[in-house]
Amino acid sequence: MDYSNFFSKRTNLVTASFIRNILKAAKEPGVISFAGGLPNPQTFPTEELQDILAEVGKDKAAYQYDTTEGYAPLRKSVVEYMSKLGINADINNVLITTGSQQALFETALLFLNRGDRAIVEEPTFIGGIGPFKLFGFESPNSDNIEGIAMDDKGLLVDELESRLMILKNKKWQMPKFVYTIPTFQNPTGITMCEKRRKKLLDLAHEYDFLIIEDDPYGRISYEENVPKPIKSFDEEGRVVYLGTFSKIFAPGYRVAWVIAPTEIVAQMAKLKQNIDLHTETFGQMVIQRYMELGLLEKHIQEIIPFYQEKRDIMLKSMDAHFDKGYSNWVKPKGGLFTWITVQGVDTLALADLAVKKYRVAFVPGPAFYLHPDVGGDGMRINFSYPSNEQIEEGVIRLANAIEEERKKAFEETPTMI
Amino acid sequence: MDYSNFFSKRTNLVTASFIRNILKAAKEPGVISFAGGLPNPQTFPTEELQDILAEVGKDKAAYQYDTTEGYAPLRKSVVEYMSKLGINADINNVLITTGSQQALFETALLFLNRGDRAIVEEPTFIGGIGPFKLFGFESPNSDNIEGIAMDDKGLLVDELESRLMILKNKKWQMPKFVYTIPTFQNPTGITMCEKRRKKLLDLAHEYDFLIIEDDPYGRISYEENVPKPIKSFDEEGRVVYLGTFSKIFAPGYRVAWVIAPTEIVAQMAKLKQNIDLHTETFGQMVIQRYMELGLLEKHIQEIIPFYQEKRDIMLKSMDAHFDKGYSNWVKPKGGLFTWITVQGVDTLALADLAVKKYRVAFVPGPAFYLHPDVGGDGMRINFSYPSNEQIEEGVIRLANAIEEERKKAFEETPTMI
Repeated sequence: MDYSNFFSKRTNLVTASFIRNILKAAKEPGVISFAGGLPNPQTFPTEELQDILAEVGKDKAAYQYDTTEGYAPLRKSVVEYMSKLGINADINNVLITTGSQQALFETALLFLNRGDRAIVEEPTFIGGIGPFKLFGFESPNSDNIEGIAMDDKGLLVDELESRLMILKNKKWQMPKFVYTIPTFQNPTGITMCEKRRKKLLDLAHEYDFLIIEDDPYGRISYEENVPKPIKSFDEEGRVVYLGTFSKIFAPGYRVAWVIAPTEIVAQMAKLKQNIDLHTETFGQMVIQRYMELGLLEKHIQEIIPFYQEKRDIMLKSMDAHFDKGYSNWVKPKGGLFTWITVQGVDTLALADLAVKKYRVAFVPGPAFYLHPDVGGDGMRINFSYPSNEQIEEGVIRLANAIEEERKKAFEETPTMI
Repeated sequence: MDYSNFFSKRTNLVTASFIRNILKAAKEPGVISFAGGLPNPQTFPTEELQDILAEVGKDKAAYQYDTTEGYAPLRKSVVEYMSKLGINADINNVLITTGSQQALFETALLFLNRGDRAIVEEPTFIGGIGPFKLFGFESPNSDNIEGIAMDDKGLLVDELESRLMILKNKKWQMPKFVYTIPTFQNPTGITMCEKRRKKLLDLAHEYDFLIIEDDPYGRISYEENVPKPIKSFDEEGRVVYLGTFSKIFAPGYRVAWVIAPTEIVAQMAKLKQNIDLHTETFGQMVIQRYMELGLLEKHIQEIIPFYQEKRDIMLKSMDAHFDKGYSNWVKPKGGLFTWITVQGVDTLALADLAVKKYRVAFVPGPAFYLHPDVGGDGMRINFSYPSNEQIEEGVIRLANAIEEERKKAFEETPTMI
């Protein structure tokens, strides 16, 4: 039977992500993977959780339906956790979501009519692009979701302002929101400076848009003086903040949260009733107990040096093996990623060569752009998942792959006569 | 700040469900609740799960990201489980979802363009109505999602056929799908007879639509000769079957599944990547282990007599206390619900009176209709959650509430002169 006539039009606006196929190849034996965005399983506190699992496992409530907004004691723990980051909220500002992916999906579902304008920093998280297209695009070539570039201080806020002025002058629709991952960004590892954070908030007020601040990595910080979340400066209620336990604890339970004005939380909860009724109870109770015992803070203090060592090995290896004449990379102050750009190389072709011949995997740049005909010279490199030895060896393999691919590109360039 | 201009139009197409507010009142101390659809927490196998929790809890994989389609060993266990119900599938026909609510949401997202026709049996599950409106309706008054009535043998398939003939003759759009809960239906407890199941499948072939068969209660069967799932007769690939562990095990983990043709599973997985990446790993592993050890089948055999006793007490009490002159109710052969209709009573007003004065709660009929201006004389009565004593006492309270409300209705009727 042919089902294509049954599928809704919106189905064609999303494609299965690039990352999935590369992750598949990355799982082959012998391949060193810089491709995923996975926390390192070594960090999962399996032993410490045994008592909590036994305790929660005896509680009938862990197996029952719960409220759509989330397990109330966990929402309260999230409020306390947020206050330490300078974010003031009460329990009615908290919605528990099934991973931050669901928060991004809800963001698109709640705010975007088909054709509505929204702005993202580019490159950006692939999990944001999907839902924004699904609900915002008219066709795969629509351009109402726009990208604004970044430099080493994050989103080019001045460029954003110029764009907003043009939109205003032409009386075109203003963006509903700007989506940003300001701290240790996925995919680049870049952190937005405090001045730009405040400027972005000023622009949101002046041009009347919301800011979706996605902050999965903020606590995994290797250096001092990392700016506070944009949400902590937000007095007007312009910022919808997304937090998650996936990187600071474990992603398996799919438990994350949104901090937003109560009207937005209420609308999101109404939609979530339709999406999955509520996020699973058992995991919420386990995490709440883990936080209550002070174990989450202890855990975060343990994973920071663990990941910092990996970052340091990654940067040292890149420094030793990459040719700075044509390669550039971000020195991330936290998080799980760095971003390399290599002049004159098509990283889609490079990814293929790298995984097949050199047995090293990464995600090529175009995956992180709204229209994947750009970003071809960039690549996302993850350092949280591989072992320290794999990082060193993987960088050497990648350097060799780059060299081969560059030669090929050079040979293929037709001579100008 | 006023956020209403930021919200998408579709946001207005769903309202927070009636059930939520009633469930809130139903939780007040002293209220006997027939309102929920909750499995009884007494059935949750907390002790039996301790070893499994300890074992899964030691496995790093339980805390990590998993594939969008679901934990592969669980998908395999679902295939085996389905084969016992006469449903042939392989692992590529299985998608694990975050509760069946997500499967219904995916159904709407995948199949419904705004304005597309779909048909549901009425009354029907409130969790289906929400997503179908969200993606199918143009306005809250749209009528492209249509209801077809039921009798004690289920959906009036002949009435459906008449409607399909009219649609065909007028060259109007045919429905994309018919949504049905054929076995121990929510909200009515009615079971569709085998003849109608086969006729519905024939109509699907003849008029080229899909059948969404939602089957959360099928295993909780108190009598012999309950017909097999429609999916078991489906040779062409017309049926998308929804199963769940919520009622036969526990809803807290939010683990359910879809059995569908591979093309549909692939599209749903693509959408699910955007919705929540994957269903939580830990719960999937716990349930898989529970099935592997043969404990699920054992558990089902234990909960059937437990719930059957409650059904019997409910029916006996209703027989003793309800006035058959104006009350009618379904004698369900399985599942968690019965449905009462009371002539001349507005069950919305009755629900209010019942909870406030008589301290007994139920969900009034209009909640289960596409347009809640109908169904006013029906009410859904759940018997799985209350204790046996509460069932007897609650029926007496409800009978008294009905009597008072009927008198009031009678007094209010203006005299015709």
